[in-house]
Amino acid sequence: MFKKLCLIGVGFMGGSFALAFRESFPNCEILGIDVNPSATDKAIQLGVIDVGSAHLNSLLGFKPDLIMLATPVGTFENIARELSTLDIKNTLITDLGSVKGKLVYTLEEYLGENFVGGHPIAGTEKSGVENSSKDLFKGKRCILTPTQRTSPKALEKIKNMWISLGAVVEEMNPFLHDYVFGAVSHLPHAVAFALIDAIRHLSKDDVDLFKYPGGGFKDFTRIAGSDPIMWRDIFLENWENVLKAIEAFEASLKNLKELIKSRNSQELTNYLRSAKDCRERIN
Amino acid sequence: MFKKLCLIGVGFMGGSFALAFRESFPNCEILGIDVNPSATDKAIQLGVIDVGSAHLNSLLGFKPDLIMLATPVGTFENIARELSTLDIKNTLITDLGSVKGKLVYTLEEYLGENFVGGHPIAGTEKSGVENSSKDLFKGKRCILTPTQRTSPKALEKIKNMWISLGAVVEEMNPFLHDYVFGAVSHLPHAVAFALIDAIRHLSKDDVDLFKYPGGGFKDFTRIAGSDPIMWRDIFLENWENVLKAIEAFEASLKNLKELIKSRNSQELTNYLRSAKDCRERIN
Repeated sequence: MFKKLCLIGVGFMGGSFALAFRESFPNCEILGIDVNPSATDKAIQLGVIDVGSAHLNSLLGFKPDLIMLATPVGTFENIARELSTLDIKNTLITDLGSVKGKLVYTLEEYLGENFVGGHPIAGTEKSGVENSSKDLFKGKRCILTPTQRTSPKALEKIKNMWISLGAVVEEMNPFLHDYVFGAVSHLPHAVAFALIDAIRHLSKDDVDLFKYPGGGFKDFTRIAGSDPIMWRDIFLENWENVLKAIEAFEASLKNLKELIKSRNSQELTNYLRSAKDCRERIN
Repeated sequence: MFKKLCLIGVGFMGGSFALAFRESFPNCEILGIDVNPSATDKAIQLGVIDVGSAHLNSLLGFKPDLIMLATPVGTFENIARELSTLDIKNTLITDLGSVKGKLVYTLEEYLGENFVGGHPIAGTEKSGVENSSKDLFKGKRCILTPTQRTSPKALEKIKNMWISLGAVVEEMNPFLHDYVFGAVSHLPHAVAFALIDAIRHLSKDDVDLFKYPGGGFKDFTRIAGSDPIMWRDIFLENWENVLKAIEAFEASLKNLKELIKSRNSQELTNYLRSAKDCRERIN
């Protein structure tokens, strides 16, 4: 179905997509574009992409039938603006970004009906193309966020592409997407980063708390090892939902703190039990 | 070395200890005491313990050479008081509790020089004797918190016992222990419980956020599935350190929130990068 993929952003997510894509479409050719030449060089060596470039206009000669945006979301608008100046009218364009909402409408302004917003719910704290995994998306959900303007044909093709990569596709309103993932993904990442920051402050000259990673700390904070640029962009792009979620969390933590402070054993038990019950629903 | 173990509290931690203990001392006999007869019944069926009882004074006839406290820490003082009325003068006593500090001194008041405070840094979110794992402590640290009063001979025996179970023993001041684990273990658990509580509040009639467990949420909140009674007791016993740690975390989160709100891209990047760097030290 697809013969030529242009991957913009050759990191862990983009690299994993390229590997998965090549497995489903073995005869495809892949052009990787990245501002960092060492990323494209590494990706060529690893067989993740076939050719590399540092310039968006290289895709003109390449003539891709699919363009995948896999850079941090903060770069999307500028990239879309530049793409809109190139003659790529009939090329399908989609993305791997963790923020949708009004960003989808902005991208549509530049890219038109052939743009389909996407967000595979997959990833690890790893970064760098050298960590790419071809099985990253298998069995995982991929949220697509079409709008009234999206071409039904483009949506259908992107949907089938993800299904052929082993993902389970779900459609969602772009704004609902940002509310949901602001809560269940962006909030936990903010909390993990802040937790590490707190442990750093709680370390004293004679006590290096990072030497005691037991008791759940290590697993709990794994996501704080995620790429800072990617997460800076997510927090800034989805700031309204992220702040709302952080505030709800602050209220919940304050409540727990008060129950501990007041030594309210029964209410404290209820609070913890209710959290445990909710947690078990997602096992 | 040990022939008769009396396990007080037949749950996941105690059951795992009994299984590991039996592997190291294959000819030992194990009496399990638990207020809940279904726990001891299950433990006998599973071969975790040999005999069961609901009453502490059963250990008089049993004559253990080691007593292991494996109940929630909130019960320790009452159990120690009751044990102090029994004739168990030469019996070694230790525990698996996650709180030490002044609790160790309180227990010493009742139990004397043969009590050695212990805290294996191992555990999962699981509870119940049926989930016990004989390998839980292998390669894990076990913190012992002797005081000036602790018998050096008792300490030596408990130390060797943990080594024979495959643990790596470290000695620590009881108060330092509570500061350290208040930060690296009790704080992350408080945060995980509060995060689930927040997600529950952020769920709306038409959006069940627990249906979207991707993006790190599932791993991040696994520890919120931990036993509520065990954690209630830990939070209440170590409340001063836990509150101090929660407050440091609140300050870190507030800082992060302000960086997002003010769209301070450079400082936000520094904050996240610094957290990532710290996190990588514990990989």
